[in-house]
Amino acid sequence: MSEIDTYGVGKVICSGNPEFQKDDLVAGLLTWGEYTVAEEGRLLNKLDSMGLPLSNHVGVLGFSGLTAYGGLFEVCKPKKGEKVFVSAASGSVGHLVGQYAKLHGCYVVGSAGSLKKVQVLKEELGFDDAFNYKEESDLKAALKRYFPDGIDVYFDNVGAEMLEAAVANMNTFGRVGVCGVISEYTNTTKRAAPDMLEVVYKRITIQGFLALDHMKVYGEFLSTTAEHLKTEQMKSLEDISHGVESIPSAFVGLFRGDNVGKMIVQIAED
Amino acid sequence: MSEIDTYGVGKVICSGNPEFQKDDLVAGLLTWGEYTVAEEGRLLNKLDSMGLPLSNHVGVLGFSGLTAYGGLFEVCKPKKGEKVFVSAASGSVGHLVGQYAKLHGCYVVGSAGSLKKVQVLKEELGFDDAFNYKEESDLKAALKRYFPDGIDVYFDNVGAEMLEAAVANMNTFGRVGVCGVISEYTNTTKRAAPDMLEVVYKRITIQGFLALDHMKVYGEFLSTTAEHLKTEQMKSLEDISHGVESIPSAFVGLFRGDNVGKMIVQIAED
Repeated sequence: MSEIDTYGVGKVICSGNPEFQKDDLVAGLLTWGEYTVAEEGRLLNKLDSMGLPLSNHVGVLGFSGLTAYGGLFEVCKPKKGEKVFVSAASGSVGHLVGQYAKLHGCYVVGSAGSLKKVQVLKEELGFDDAFNYKEESDLKAALKRYFPDGIDVYFDNVGAEMLEAAVANMNTFGRVGVCGVISEYTNTTKRAAPDMLEVVYKRITIQGFLALDHMKVYGEFLSTTAEHLKTEQMKSLEDISHGVESIPSAFVGLFRGDNVGKMIVQIAED
Repeated sequence: MSEIDTYGVGKVICSGNPEFQKDDLVAGLLTWGEYTVAEEGRLLNKLDSMGLPLSNHVGVLGFSGLTAYGGLFEVCKPKKGEKVFVSAASGSVGHLVGQYAKLHGCYVVGSAGSLKKVQVLKEELGFDDAFNYKEESDLKAALKRYFPDGIDVYFDNVGAEMLEAAVANMNTFGRVGVCGVISEYTNTTKRAAPDMLEVVYKRITIQGFLALDHMKVYGEFLSTTAEHLKTEQMKSLEDISHGVESIPSAFVGLFRGDNVGKMIVQIAED
């Protein structure tokens, strides 16, 4: 059980802990279900909704947001004007990465797995461009087309051929932040074999990371992101299913790539 | 023609440039041959031999040394007590990396391609251990044997299967400095396909570099290394062939892996 799978928001019904009162909102590790008993020592904090929807606190203001923010700014360190490529760009993390990079003054292109997702990226989220990787037979050539001057930052959510193609199109001192490896989750034989000669000659850095490594920027991430949401400079894409009974189909959809944005299961009304 | 191929040391015979006098020693880009005319603008500097053999200035005090020093300390950033693995460890760069890491207080294991090279690493250069990769059918298992507590730093000169095996044995927050890709020089289909899931979960950084990126530590590198050589805390392995006619066989030997240490062609006596 990882903190992502069961990260959630809930409301206190009753409490034997003086730090929590009835009707307090909490965020943290919750057991799937309509009710849960949180024992002492559970990672659970009082939640200030900051006037934003509770669903925001599960995604854009939760671990997905911190992963995007920490991975982009602490690992990939884009400079204003740099060219940023994001794969799985309509996913829970990817769609936030692209928006952070745009707000930072970068040129941003995303890849996704359907026409609908590509449209969302370009029309709703302000990506400079986007493409459906399933319609590209040669990913290296596709990236060359979208980045004629090369890629400076690649936020990698998928691994495999896309990573190889990105490295081939990378500029000198390019940075790859490896956030996820969707290609390997369901097929463990799929591997990326980027050309290490290019890694040397172009002095590329490929770095894996987890959101937890970036807790030091949590405060900054939370205030910046809440502000972007309130001023509508940033959107949170949320794909919400309803009820305990929707959990299995939500998971299946997640691994099939059905979701656009953060997949959330809502069990109770606000 | 790259700066490595023709980096050399020479003596001025006559000069029309007031900065250089007859009998001055110079180091920099030289054309292969007994004599060469260096035109204005050529990358060439006066050389202070610091009382050390001229051959040292081609290798350990030249680009091989700067590559080892910059790559290890600026890219891999080992801490005292960390476990360091070096491939092609008896090569021009590798044998220096291992010695720098030992002087820094690290545990160092090297791989090389012959028993003789392995003996040199252990008996002459003070590596904690070394092995002949040609005698290992399973590199992952071999590294597990030499690093039961995992690898913190891998200085990669070879790429391919060795990089995969090192990533598999890497500790959390491990660093791979990619200096060279010997496996690809003579076989362009050989590729490393490290498990990117491990790169994410273990937050591994894989970074390519060139010596030229580290000119800012050149002064520090030169004084530190000259001191280590004078106090005999460090040895320079040099494989010297003699005469212009030995150039082709020296190159063939280099790519076949015959050399132990820096391959140098000496054309004239000091």
